[in-house]
Order: sequence, then structure tokens, then C-alpha cells
Amino acid sequence: QSSVTLYGVVDVALERVKGATSLTRVTSGQMFGSRWGVRGVEDVGGGMKATFLLESGFNADTGTLGQGGRLFGRQGYVGLGGHWGTVRLGRQYTPMDDIASIIGTKVYDVVSVVPIIGNGDYNRVDNAITYVSPTVANTVFQLQYSLGEERASTNTSADFGKQVSAHALYAQGPWTLGLSLMQVADADGVLAGKQGKDALLFVGAYDFGPVKLTGYYDIEDKAVEKLKLFGLAAAFKVGENTVLAVGAAQAKNVNGSAAAGDDARIYTLQATHNLSKRTALYGHITAVSNDTASALGFNNPVAGQSSSGIQVGIRHRF
Amino acid sequence: QSSVTLYGVVDVALERVKGATSLTRVTSGQMFGSRWGVRGVEDVGGGMKATFLLESGFNADTGTLGQGGRLFGRQGYVGLGGHWGTVRLGRQYTPMDDIASIIGTKVYDVVSVVPIIGNGDYNRVDNAITYVSPTVANTVFQLQYSLGEERASTNTSADFGKQVSAHALYAQGPWTLGLSLMQVADADGVLAGKQGKDALLFVGAYDFGPVKLTGYYDIEDKAVEKLKLFGLAAAFKVGENTVLAVGAAQAKNVNGSAAAGDDARIYTLQATHNLSKRTALYGHITAVSNDTASALGFNNPVAGQSSSGIQVGIRHRF
Amino acid sequence: QSSVTLYGVVDVALERVKGATSLTRVTSGQMFGSRWGVRGVEDVGGGMKATFLLESGFNADTGTLGQGGRLFGRQGYVGLGGHWGTVRLGRQYTPMDDIASIIGTKVYDVVSVVPIIGNGDYNRVDNAITYVSPTVANTVFQLQYSLGEERASTNTSADFGKQVSAHALYAQGPWTLGLSLMQVADADGVLAGKQGKDALLFVGAYDFGPVKLTGYYDIEDKAVEKLKLFGLAAAFKVGENTVLAVGAAQAKNVNGSAAAGDDARIYTLQATHNLSKRTALYGHITAVSNDTASALGFNNPVAGQSSSGIQVGIRHRF
Repeated sequence: QSSVTLYGVVDVALERVKGATSLTRVTSGQMFGSRWGVRGVEDVGGGMKATFLLESGFNADTGTLGQGGRLFGRQGYVGLGGHWGTVRLGRQYTPMDDIASIIGTKVYDVVSVVPIIGNGDYNRVDNAITYVSPTVANTVFQLQYSLGEERASTNTSADFGKQVSAHALYAQGPWTLGLSLMQVADADGVLAGKQGKDALLFVGAYDFGPVKLTGYYDIEDKAVEKLKLFGLAAAFKVGENTVLAVGAAQAKNVNGSAAAGDDARIYTLQATHNLSKRTALYGHITAVSNDTASALGFNNPVAGQSSSGIQVGIRHRF
Repeated sequence: QSSVTLYGVVDVALERVKGATSLTRVTSGQMFGSRWGVRGVEDVGGGMKATFLLESGFNADTGTLGQGGRLFGRQGYVGLGGHWGTVRLGRQYTPMDDIASIIGTKVYDVVSVVPIIGNGDYNRVDNAITYVSPTVANTVFQLQYSLGEERASTNTSADFGKQVSAHALYAQGPWTLGLSLMQVADADGVLAGKQGKDALLFVGAYDFGPVKLTGYYDIEDKAVEKLKLFGLAAAFKVGENTVLAVGAAQAKNVNGSAAAGDDARIYTLQATHNLSKRTALYGHITAVSNDTASALGFNNPVAGQSSSGIQVGIRHRF
Repeated sequence: QSSVTLYGVVDVALERVKGATSLTRVTSGQMFGSRWGVRGVEDVGGGMKATFLLESGFNADTGTLGQGGRLFGRQGYVGLGGHWGTVRLGRQYTPMDDIASIIGTKVYDVVSVVPIIGNGDYNRVDNAITYVSPTVANTVFQLQYSLGEERASTNTSADFGKQVSAHALYAQGPWTLGLSLMQVADADGVLAGKQGKDALLFVGAYDFGPVKLTGYYDIEDKAVEKLKLFGLAAAFKVGENTVLAVGAAQAKNVNGSAAAGDDARIYTLQATHNLSKRTALYGHITAVSNDTASALGFNNPVAGQSSSGIQVGIRHRF
């Protein structure tokens, strides 16, 4: 019942991006983040299991470490589980990021182009304690608290990094429904005072078989007005090994300023062809239409100008 | 007879520490340093074996590399052994650290709270050549020389990092006796001239079965007066899977200054419960009583004030 | 037909080098670069294979990462191959470095002492696309294009890192013949304008059985005059497990200046004794005779002075 597994992903693409300038480049981790890791589970008796996961992100185009040079920047935790659920300690994904992954968190996906907090600054957190419930009424609950780092008296902000979030994830037949809430104690480590922040993310998906529809809604604190993001995506199965997906989304108050003109619209078109269970070829197109004060997109996008990217790549799992 | 093994430890704890301030935090590597590594042994014939070990330390609470960002900061060496013993080349533990590990070198152990050189600046050394003897009269001898790094004419101190140390480790029935000597050519890489340093560490342990007693004595050069550390610990087996341990130690001349008031006393209480061979839960308490000029302990301890820490954690080996 | 392999090399030596000063030190990766990696191949059907390689260089004497702190600084790529050849994307060796490896690219080898571009700044490149042909008439062809990194408008040199190179490698009976060409778009990332650079490397070897002869010729752009390097090496089999090799080379216009006096001669003597397939002991001697303006060799060599190194080491593969 015990096992230790070495695993990973190497994902490299060739892309053409248009932002401040247009350029062609080789990039890593576009469909899945390139990574290697070790994970394991041990049956410790009495219905309990010890688990661990060490996951290292890297850039296959240059060989450098990802996540700011952390070795296990993607995740690093140890956990203990039983019939009552699992508790994990360490660097981990937030429950909100888990819900965002139902929408898709690829570089060309809407929730990456619009940097929502649950897939951005707080997709992973340090010093976290996570509780994962068993499945109850087709629903899994997660609750996470991260204590922040070295909150000594010398820190400008004693609460930087403190975060609590939770999610409920319902999966039954064709339905997938996910709701997540997050509260960040101090989203800014420099300014004095607590720069608190709240966020909510809802995702609903229905799988018709040949077509799967996904809708989502995100709302979160910004400087003055709340950021709102909502969108729809449809994924079509084409034969055994190919999926085509289209998506459209509206982002409102990207900057959170009271003034108008910081909305944007994001359109995506994606194709994935599985050569095998482990290897896939993919093509992604994303186009962003920015209002006058919005600057979302690729390669240093310019406010008020459209930005876009197109890429083809290969993703290999081991 | 040949094998290559991927192995590691993930160890995360929740602790409350009192020093300059009191704070609660998640920390990594408190019982065992969190690590992953690869080790192997190859039978090359003629009674000889080639061995290697690459061991990478990391912080599971944040995913960062340990040992100042070194990949294999814990150890990295290749060796060749036969009936005459083993010679190893690379980054390695010092023979004195091997003896310190009989006392215990956890973060909450006495020889970590009092930063003795053999478990501190010289627990591991670069550019080392180590000879490990076969067991002779129940005793293993180790001799190590580290050459220092890039001792070019431009270095302020041409001898920084040069070190020689040795140990004798006797193990027979209930007895374990260890003695180690170390000489550092230049403990300071900035000051001109050789800032030489000597250290001696003695450890004796006797295992009564239900109780194991350990006593130790460390003496080493400091600025003016010698640092002296001596202490006792007792470990009690409670049932099959639980060990309770208590310890007390006296450190004299912590700063090495001629003036009085730089002594400290350290008290430890530890519990370990093995869930399995690979997984353990633990609890540690350490309290430090500092004299007016001593500042040992946790979270930026203040001279003359007591400091303490309490933690519970999980250690998982793979 | 699918496999994933964890592999590596630990190589540590003791050397005495003479340059600006003479010193003795422990060094890593002298015969083979110390490394660990994961590589795999997957049969995806239809005669096609997916491959990947992630290779991390490190220094076993200190435990630090090599290649400027990159995790997979040696190589990191994913590829797809069929009867038509293989295409690989990521950080890779250049085709010219592949040809240089026939001569030998150890630290004490001529093409390392004379830093030719194909075994120096451009031995590996980021963001590369490589095509490897099937074997046609006993010859394998490689073609590589590297796109450079983040060639945004803000870069001083928009073409830094752009590179194209190719090789043809013929192997038939006792003959090995390799030819490689390289063109670097901008060898300098700071100076304005394209600092283009061309290089050519030819290697021929004939294996008589007990003796193998290798000759080579390298020519490449320098400031004013072209650098030229040519040399000969002979490797003698001594018994089953030992190889002795001698080499001599002439480097002309090491600095590329119009003035005379920047030539050098390099002499090598090498012995390798295989203890097993995985473990070898080795000894290397290299001596450099520098003309008045040449400063090749070891430990900060001085222009016009000879420089030399002698080392013994152990190389263990896993």
C-alpha cells in the first residue's frame, strides 16, 4: 500500500506574442508547468496514511528554476490522513487555486491573463496548514490557513502572507460545481496597516459527453472598485484523442480604479491532440481587447491596445 | 551487490517560540532536516566498493533550498572502499559532527542551541578528503582534511576553510563512546592572519534498555576564554513506539569574553511517537536561561533574558 | 518500449595547478561533469517516439549548482522522433559541441584550455530547436536554431543568443569524421549592432585497434584575426581496462589581435583505468606554453608564462 514515485512534465512551445512589440520565442510550461517531483503514500496502519509531495518547477527553455529560484517552488508538504480527512503541512496550493483549475490555469487561459488572486499571488502559499475532508454528499471541502513567514517585530507588516481560504467541490454525474472564498490578512508587505483582501470564485461545469460547458465568476477587492471576471467555455471532443475548446470572458475594473475604461474582454481557442496518455501536442490562441486603461495580455501589453498570442507545443509527462 | 536509491525526509512542525518577541510559525526540518537524495554502492570486484551520496536540503515550509542555496548542500561525495577502509572526496560531514549526532543535533537539541563548531560552522565542509577505518576492537576511526576553497593569492585569508578533524567511535554492547578533535586553520576569512581554532568533543552513552543515559563535554577556542559545554540526557522507552527524553546542560563562556555573565543553562524535553518505521510524530520543548551577557535561544534571543520554544511536528521518511 | 531513468555522474579530483600562483585543491567534474538527471523515451505508436532529458550539473566539492545556478543547466528538452528523424525543443548542446566531444571536452583537454566557441560560450544554448536526422550513408546530420531570449524592444541587442549551427558526423568501421559550422547572430549582448561570429570545427579519427589517432582543426572569428586551433592526439589501449593518451596542439591568434605573440602550444597526457563499467580512476596532466600575449591555462594564468595542471580523480556513474 506504500509507494514512492518520481514523476514530471516537460512542456515546451514555440509562440508568437504581440504586446508592446511582436516576437517569436521558445517558452516552457505553457499547457502544464514543466516540473519534476517525488510523491509518496505510506499506510501507517489503523486506517491512516502518511503522504508527501515535493514538486519542483523549472523552465525547460533555459534550465532555470521556476518560482523565484525555489527548489520545490510548486509544492512541498507532508500530510497525515484517515477516515476523518487529511491534514497537510508546508507549501501548498490554495483551495481557491484548486477551483480555478476547473476553468483551466494554463498561461493562455483567461484566469492567467486576468491575474485573479486565487491563480496569481495566492495560487500557492508558504507555511500552510490544509484540511481536506472526505467526500460527503459528493462534495469535498478544503480549509487552509497560512501563518505567514517570520512574523518578527522587525517586519513592516506583521501579517504579510497570512491567508485563510476554503472551498467546496461538488462532483456528481455530469455536474461539477466549485465555490471558494479567500481572505488575505495583508496583501501588501510594505505598506503599514493591514491591506486586507477578500475574493470569491465560483465555477460550474456540465458535461454533455461530446461537449462540456464551463461557466465561472470571480470577484475580489481592488484599490477602489471590485474586480469582476465572468466567462464561458465550451470543449468539444473530436474523435478519440482530440479536444477543441473555445472561451470568452469579460473582466471589469481590472485596475480597480473608480474611473471607467479598465475593462477587458478575453477570447481563447485551444486544441489538444493526445499522441498517447503521456504525450500531447497542443495549439493555443488568446486575444485580449483592452479598454483605454486596461493592459492585459502578453509581452508587456500596452493600455488600450489589443494583445494576443499564438503557440504550438508539446507536453510530455513521465 | 550494486544499488542506487532515491530517498528523503519531509519534516514540518508548528512551533511557538519566545525570543525578542513571541510568535507562532510553521517550520521545516526540526527533527530531521528535510532532504532528498540519491545514494549508491557498486561492487567493483577485488573486495572493493565504489560509493556515492548526493543529499539536498530544503525547507518544506517554503520550498526553498537549504544551506545557502546549494543544491547538494547537505553532502556530496564519491568514495572507494575495501578491507582497509574507505576514502571519500567532496562535501561531507566532519568527524566531529558525527560524534555530535550521538547527542542529537535537532534544532531543539542542546548542541544546536549552543552553536558548537562541530555542529555549527564546521558540521559540513567543502573540498574534504575523509578516511573511514574498518571496525577495529569495536572502534571506527575517521580522519578528515579539507583543503579550503580556491586559495589563490588574491584571497584575504589563504587558509580559510582549511580544517582537519578526527574521531574514534567505540560501540560495544550497551556502551557508545565517542571522542573527536578538530583544528581549523583559519576560522575567519576576513581578518588577516590565521585565526586558528581547536575543539574537542566527548560523548558517552550507556543503554540500560528501558533507559539510555548520555553525557557529553565540548571545549573550544573563543575570543579570550574557552567555550565549555557539558550536559546529560536520559531517554525513556514508553511502550513499543514512544520515547521520552529529558536533558540539561551548562554552557560556560558562550561569548568567550573575559568578563563574567556569559554562561547559560539549557533544558530539553522531547517526545517521539513512531506511527511506522517511516513516519513519526514529535513534540519538543527547549528552555534557555541566559546570564546577563548570553543570548542563546530562539527568534532573536535577547542577552540576559530567557528564551524558549515548543513545537509539534511530523517527520516522514521515504 | 517506454522507460524513465534516473542517472548521474559524481566525479571528484585532487589537483595541483600552476598559474598566477601554485595551489592544491579538490575539484569536481574533471573527467565528466558531475551531474544527475532524468531521461525517458516513450513509444507513442505509429513508429514515433517521445523523448525527454533533464540534466542538472553540480559541483561535488561544494554541493553548489553548476551552469550559473540553473537547475537543469546541462540540458533540458523534450523531443518527438520518427523514421524521418527527431525534433527537440529546449536547452541543448550545440551540434558543434557534439563534434568537439570526439576530441574530448574534459577540463584538461585542449578544446577546454583553448576556449573555442563550440565548447565554450556556445556549447549549450537556450531556446533551441534541433533536428537530428536518421543515419544516411553512415552519416548523421544535425541542424539547430536557437531563438535567443526575450527579444523585446528594450534589449540592447535584440539578437543576443540567436544562433544556428549544423554538423555532419560520419562513422564507418575505424573512421569517424565530423564537421560542424556555427553562426552566432550577436556574440555580445552589450555592444550595439550585431557582433556576428562564425566558427568551423573539423575532427577526424581512425581507430587502429590498440591505437586510436585523432586530429582536429578549429577556426573562428576574433577581434581582428581569426583564431585557429589544430592538434593531434593518440590513445593507446594498455590491457583490458586502461587507456593512455597523449596530445599536442597549436593555437594561433588566441586573442585575435593583429599584433604577434598571442599563440600557444598545449600538451596533454592522460590515463584512465576502469575499475568497472561505472567507476574509473584517472590522471591528467596538461601543460601550456604561452607566447608573450597569450594567457591560457589554469588558476589565473599569466600572459607569456607557462601554466600547468596535474590531477588524479575518481569518476563514478550511476
